[in-house]
Amino acid sequence: MAISPLAPDSFPDLPPLEGVRLAALHAGIRYKTRKDLLLVELAAGTTVAGVFTRSKTAAAPVLCCCEHLKGGKARGLLVNSGNANAFTGAAGEKAVVHTVGKAAELIGCTVEEMFVASTGVIGEPLPDERIISHLQPAYDSLSADDWEGAARAIMTTDTFPKMVTRKAYIGETEVTINGIAKGSGMIAPDMATMLAFIFTDANIPAPVLQELLTHGNEKSFNAITVDSDTSTSDTVLLFATAQARHAAIGAVDDPLLDDFRENLDKVMLELAHLIVRDGEGASKFVTVEVTGSESDVAAKRIGLAIANSPLVKTAIAGEDPNWGRIVMAVGKSGEAADRDKLSIWIGDSHVAADGAVCPDYSEKKTAEYMKGQEITLRVDVGVGQGKFTVWSCDLTHEYISINADYRS
Amino acid sequence: MAISPLAPDSFPDLPPLEGVRLAALHAGIRYKTRKDLLLVELAAGTTVAGVFTRSKTAAAPVLCCCEHLKGGKARGLLVNSGNANAFTGAAGEKAVVHTVGKAAELIGCTVEEMFVASTGVIGEPLPDERIISHLQPAYDSLSADDWEGAARAIMTTDTFPKMVTRKAYIGETEVTINGIAKGSGMIAPDMATMLAFIFTDANIPAPVLQELLTHGNEKSFNAITVDSDTSTSDTVLLFATAQARHAAIGAVDDPLLDDFRENLDKVMLELAHLIVRDGEGASKFVTVEVTGSESDVAAKRIGLAIANSPLVKTAIAGEDPNWGRIVMAVGKSGEAADRDKLSIWIGDSHVAADGAVCPDYSEKKTAEYMKGQEITLRVDVGVGQGKFTVWSCDLTHEYISINADYRS
Repeated sequence: MAISPLAPDSFPDLPPLEGVRLAALHAGIRYKTRKDLLLVELAAGTTVAGVFTRSKTAAAPVLCCCEHLKGGKARGLLVNSGNANAFTGAAGEKAVVHTVGKAAELIGCTVEEMFVASTGVIGEPLPDERIISHLQPAYDSLSADDWEGAARAIMTTDTFPKMVTRKAYIGETEVTINGIAKGSGMIAPDMATMLAFIFTDANIPAPVLQELLTHGNEKSFNAITVDSDTSTSDTVLLFATAQARHAAIGAVDDPLLDDFRENLDKVMLELAHLIVRDGEGASKFVTVEVTGSESDVAAKRIGLAIANSPLVKTAIAGEDPNWGRIVMAVGKSGEAADRDKLSIWIGDSHVAADGAVCPDYSEKKTAEYMKGQEITLRVDVGVGQGKFTVWSCDLTHEYISINADYRS
Repeated sequence: MAISPLAPDSFPDLPPLEGVRLAALHAGIRYKTRKDLLLVELAAGTTVAGVFTRSKTAAAPVLCCCEHLKGGKARGLLVNSGNANAFTGAAGEKAVVHTVGKAAELIGCTVEEMFVASTGVIGEPLPDERIISHLQPAYDSLSADDWEGAARAIMTTDTFPKMVTRKAYIGETEVTINGIAKGSGMIAPDMATMLAFIFTDANIPAPVLQELLTHGNEKSFNAITVDSDTSTSDTVLLFATAQARHAAIGAVDDPLLDDFRENLDKVMLELAHLIVRDGEGASKFVTVEVTGSESDVAAKRIGLAIANSPLVKTAIAGEDPNWGRIVMAVGKSGEAADRDKLSIWIGDSHVAADGAVCPDYSEKKTAEYMKGQEITLRVDVGVGQGKFTVWSCDLTHEYISINADYRS
């Protein structure tokens, strides 16, 4: 499959991160040649935070992670692509117990310190014996270096690996944050699964780590949409290996965390943007900024109504500054908006204000702007101070081709 | 534009209906040659009921109808296609006042007895003078016969006119119900506008008429979706001319209304189905039946989550019995479902039960079924007695072409 036109020009080299060893290999779960199994070993003392899909049909690995997260400690992570182990009933739960049990044995930790994720086909039994037979070789090849292998092993229909690294200071101490993610919207014949794993050598208590993750997630992974379909397997896990030597962290509002929080938020946002840039069939990266709503929550609903509207998405694909469709999407969101104060911008062009098209609006100039790869829509609904930004992509023939024109 | 492959083989002849005279003509609002203006005169004593878009950016004609509906009486209806008079600010409201005022003058009624609808481009000023200049010729050509002209004059990107007629008994008296509708999902460069106008010669008090309409609407027009985008202009109006001589109607539960209600519901459902059959790019007519939910409202949410899922819709377009995507859509609806009791049928094939694929499920047989034009998906979520059925169509390349590949 061709690499997305929105892919970054180059991929960063992720540095080793104390307390993290990885192994990525080909276990033959579904793909003929690609790496499809990732084992990560984490140092003793690692804390963990997680956010997961809100789907009512969440996959077995998600349920396992939710349970293990209560302990707040992690020593290992096992991820496979090619099979989501979703809607697999009691057999799916047993497969998790088997694979996780074996991985815990190798790493020498409790089962509750293992985390697990699966992405790919749903409704098919997970080939757990095949995974188990590859765990010893995976364990034997653990190294501090193979971040790109890890990012590739969790891909399904992704067209490029997604990796981000940043440095942050906690007091005088420099710490590292490495993140990898996968996700491309919907995959044939499966549903989208968005996974992200973020690692840091910082020493942060699990409850604080969870607050940092939950907060950052709201404005990054929870602020993107490719096609409005929610996966059974979405998982974001943040591990802190506690290997860095910095002063002890207090509560989540400890000023020591300011720079770390800022950089963690950036890592999450960059990973989230990379997922949109690999959205199925995407040809434009779209930013939707909403202001002037009753609340931030209302702004998010309006932003998602715009970003998920098939009409708006196809207009962007057609490079058509069809602002009437934006008015429609604001209206269908159900959130308060003042028709006579509604303002719409496409890029720098002020398109509509005071309930009608702006007198000096140039459709020609705006149509020219729509030919670019980065499109920003801005809406002020004129009723309050709420604001939120969501990111999305357009809806193209290629999306239909990927999801309708062939079977797996 | 080619006629939808899901169009009915023939169109019914709608009989004259006592108390209704119609005129359809070309006023040149946007289309070069097509009829685009409809004037209807209703007999004195006509009662009216209406349901409208819930959009927060509703068009000026919708706001006018909501206001006039309070009186419960109607003498005229004015509809134009080619311009939605939506997001047109104070000028849009004035245009409604002008056109409706002139039509009321011709018919000899109060302004409050006039109803109005507009469908087409949004954000452009309604050419009200052009409409007004065609009102006298329209009035002069009113006749009892031109139902097909009326159905055609309200079309935008519809590929066929939508007409339904039925007879019903109120006591011993036979009455007629004639309905026309337009709608095709989304139109380039505009948003969808769904309009339906239903006429009967029955004599039914306005509050009763409203209850009949609201009830029937919930399971017909409010149970269809082409692409999840809500119009600023959706309008359903039901007029009763009171020309038939039957016993006086009491309340909405008067047994005299049983046959009428049944036939009115059928008219509404048939019109709603015709809109789906003309859904933009549609190649399959899809029925989604949901049972076993906590409530009927929950069943509707689950049904719409399935019917609106781009993944489910593209799978249907690709003739792929991809039931995993149905599981996903149930999960994302947010409604309660028991993963281990969830059952899924595609046509007659029982695909999944008890949290896993059925042992005797034949994908080959189901793939054969998916090649048909009429697809039924059935889901039982295993938690209660709620049920609801929604109707939709698939998502095809043609939808993208209609909405992205050209500009108006």
